[in-house]
Amino acid sequence: MDKLKIAFIGAGSAIWSSTIVIDLLINKNLRNLDIWLMDISDDRLNLIYGFAKRYAEELKSDAQIHKTKDRIEAIRDADFVINSAMAGGHWYYERMRQVSEEHGYYRGINSVEWNMVSDYHTIWGYYQFKLALSIARDIEEHAPDAWFIDVANPVFELTTLINRETKIKMIGLCHGHMGFIKAVEALGIMLAEEKLGQDINKFCAARRPECAAAIFKALDINELEVEMSGFNHVIWLSKFKYKGENAYPYIDQWVEKKAEEYWETWREYTVSPFDVDLSPAAVDMYKTYRLLPIGDTVRGGTWKYHWDLKTKQKWYGPYGGPDSEIGWAMYLAHLRINLDSLERAVADTSTPLTTRYPPKPSGESLVEIIEAIANDNPKESYNLQLPIPGAPPIPVPIEVNVPNMGALPGVPDNVAVEMPVKVDGKGVHRKQLTPLPRKVMNQVILPRMMRMEWALEAFLEGGRDHLTNWLMYDPRTNSTKQVEETIDALLALPENKEMAKHYS
Amino acid sequence: MDKLKIAFIGAGSAIWSSTIVIDLLINKNLRNLDIWLMDISDDRLNLIYGFAKRYAEELKSDAQIHKTKDRIEAIRDADFVINSAMAGGHWYYERMRQVSEEHGYYRGINSVEWNMVSDYHTIWGYYQFKLALSIARDIEEHAPDAWFIDVANPVFELTTLINRETKIKMIGLCHGHMGFIKAVEALGIMLAEEKLGQDINKFCAARRPECAAAIFKALDINELEVEMSGFNHVIWLSKFKYKGENAYPYIDQWVEKKAEEYWETWREYTVSPFDVDLSPAAVDMYKTYRLLPIGDTVRGGTWKYHWDLKTKQKWYGPYGGPDSEIGWAMYLAHLRINLDSLERAVADTSTPLTTRYPPKPSGESLVEIIEAIANDNPKESYNLQLPIPGAPPIPVPIEVNVPNMGALPGVPDNVAVEMPVKVDGKGVHRKQLTPLPRKVMNQVILPRMMRMEWALEAFLEGGRDHLTNWLMYDPRTNSTKQVEETIDALLALPENKEMAKHYS
Repeated sequence: MDKLKIAFIGAGSAIWSSTIVIDLLINKNLRNLDIWLMDISDDRLNLIYGFAKRYAEELKSDAQIHKTKDRIEAIRDADFVINSAMAGGHWYYERMRQVSEEHGYYRGINSVEWNMVSDYHTIWGYYQFKLALSIARDIEEHAPDAWFIDVANPVFELTTLINRETKIKMIGLCHGHMGFIKAVEALGIMLAEEKLGQDINKFCAARRPECAAAIFKALDINELEVEMSGFNHVIWLSKFKYKGENAYPYIDQWVEKKAEEYWETWREYTVSPFDVDLSPAAVDMYKTYRLLPIGDTVRGGTWKYHWDLKTKQKWYGPYGGPDSEIGWAMYLAHLRINLDSLERAVADTSTPLTTRYPPKPSGESLVEIIEAIANDNPKESYNLQLPIPGAPPIPVPIEVNVPNMGALPGVPDNVAVEMPVKVDGKGVHRKQLTPLPRKVMNQVILPRMMRMEWALEAFLEGGRDHLTNWLMYDPRTNSTKQVEETIDALLALPENKEMAKHYS
Repeated sequence: MDKLKIAFIGAGSAIWSSTIVIDLLINKNLRNLDIWLMDISDDRLNLIYGFAKRYAEELKSDAQIHKTKDRIEAIRDADFVINSAMAGGHWYYERMRQVSEEHGYYRGINSVEWNMVSDYHTIWGYYQFKLALSIARDIEEHAPDAWFIDVANPVFELTTLINRETKIKMIGLCHGHMGFIKAVEALGIMLAEEKLGQDINKFCAARRPECAAAIFKALDINELEVEMSGFNHVIWLSKFKYKGENAYPYIDQWVEKKAEEYWETWREYTVSPFDVDLSPAAVDMYKTYRLLPIGDTVRGGTWKYHWDLKTKQKWYGPYGGPDSEIGWAMYLAHLRINLDSLERAVADTSTPLTTRYPPKPSGESLVEIIEAIANDNPKESYNLQLPIPGAPPIPVPIEVNVPNMGALPGVPDNVAVEMPVKVDGKGVHRKQLTPLPRKVMNQVILPRMMRMEWALEAFLEGGRDHLTNWLMYDPRTNSTKQVEETIDALLALPENKEMAKHYS
């Protein structure tokens, strides 16, 4: 096998990059890896470089590890370019959020219906859009055959934008679809009762080992069929079959008989603001749209779930979900803690990195996809090994974001859809998808698509009235004055000098 | 020629019906008319019947005039069925508006972005949708070859709905596109200056005869080319050529040099709340979207133009446009006055009706379309004679609302588009339309289409959460409580008993 050049842009997103570097280094089907780590921050770059270099040495890998601050050097003739860069970093967006809140826009002007995720920067993502597009342009020029795999948010907007504006081969990637495992949990709770006569509902709500043990006894994971599609962060479980039969009736039973009890325990025991897959919000969405919202989809919805902290806590539990002021602070702290640990681990040469970060697959699909393409090894799913003793490998569909091209009925061809696909040496192969119900199409897909188009147009065309229009549709808006003052205040931030010009 | 049966459903919309009856009776190409007037109100039916009967007699027309309260009798074997019925009548909707306003929804929950027209009943139009669809079903059964011409609002929603749900031949009709004449006025003002050295700007703003006289001297109306398309009440002047050249630069000149002066005079002299085609709102929309909004389009827009009466007055002049509390009261009074006059005219047998209502074409396209279809007389435009001495006939494009079927790029096939067409014995022939600019598509067409889909789905599926969802996107909404209380209050109206069931 020839050398396989893989470039990480924004490699300083070190928690993420270190995970993927491990996946690459331990994959037995990948050899002669030429890994290029690129970031604009010396500190971050040295951290991930130090990590990758030592990890490869510990594994006695033949992989070559390079670092550079020169993006083109990283990209030139690459086979794969992975982008996880966040222009400006978290605190820049937190400042915009603060300014927005001073003007009546709780959680920022960027948070709108079906896009409440706190780092999914759309209308105020000017620099992020610009960065991703310029990376894509570099690929177009310096590595035209490369696959560009974007994991940087907003995946929906960036995938649509770059596929429209450039000719490169591009995939947008997210792991939100793995949330289907919580639908399996609800199914498993009901099957455990039916097959084993065991009521594990409260154990599951408290994440106790009795839960998984019973589920994997009662349920044969290989008899499960799932399909999820929609837009990134707005995907729906459009097919959910067990042993060839529709398994939604089990969900209905769980909702009817178990959900209230589950929530009571969950509210007391939950430790993560992200633990919302079976929250009251998820169930309310299911009741409304008649499909289960999967992964980050649950974090969306209209303002019904998001007016304020109290509302969020009602629907998402004690932390108000990841996108409340509590949940997001916890998340940012968590990122910082993990980064500190990584720094300490790299600095402490007395303990092998493989001890602290065991050489096991992360469960992310990225390296599985790279392997399928690089080795022409056709793949529609891969096996996820949950960190639970005795759990069987779980087949997870390969889900990517690519231009729809007819796969999901009712969505224009040039809009990126998150969908299950087959990947092989020729690339991504779409399947015909189960149509989404009218209510999901009209009330979720259409409004989310509209905001995407507005964000792209704002970025591509410039001019203040794109921002004005964005806010004029916002339920938090009460007057034109509020809109104008908010825009003025945001554009007056010192970091936004260039952006202010674009929107003048 | 065989008998031509034309049925008027909601014939008691007597001002409208009397106009069309005159157009029918005076059209020299239509013979053997069999006119059926149907309404559920005896009084209204007798009024229009009395009018039509006498008018035909005065003209010595061979037309047969019938009245009936039996809709199927009117429809059976008809060639054309014209619907102008408004289920519930104006005051029913005014009561819903009042209840909405008590809960913080100025001008009603029905008024939303790009749909601010006060009798364009979408989300609360349950009975109106039901009525129009049941008429269409009657046609399907009792006059399957008939053309259904709907002039009842909401034309956009009803045309889309009925074309999706039935197999009948249907056209939605509105005269809003005739607003292009005010674009001609702006062009004419600049041409009068250029060709004749006359500044008629203030004369035009004050609607003085000097305006039209100069314009028709400076401008050859037959050298004008216009194209307007979009959705009903949301159409745009996508082509505006004079003598083969783009005429928009004249509009730009007028905006730059004349608009402010025009508005100063107009604010003082305007007598109609509908006189808004060249208002500050229209010009602001033009500056934002780079096409002139035509006719009722100007009445739309985001809340920017509509927050409250003061805002409306800033953009639409002293009455705040037709859709303010002032403008709409004036309109309803005006309807009542015209109806009173009609009643008096019919009661007063000493004066011929033709004296009070001269036998001249109204300028409406409806009878022109009927004639084109009935006589297989191909037509793309017809001549409008303005009631101005010396004015030449103005060619007006035939514009109808029909399913898009590819005519306007970017709009799904099964969504009704208002577009210029050719009509003949075979029916409606679409043309390929000039694409609308991205900004219009994204910021106007998409959101308006979304609201249409929501209204249709609410009607077709029922269930409270359609109403909840509608309000959750409204900038006037501040809480879920407000939403729930508003819905409760609206559904509690005695007239809404059936509707409450549908939405429970």
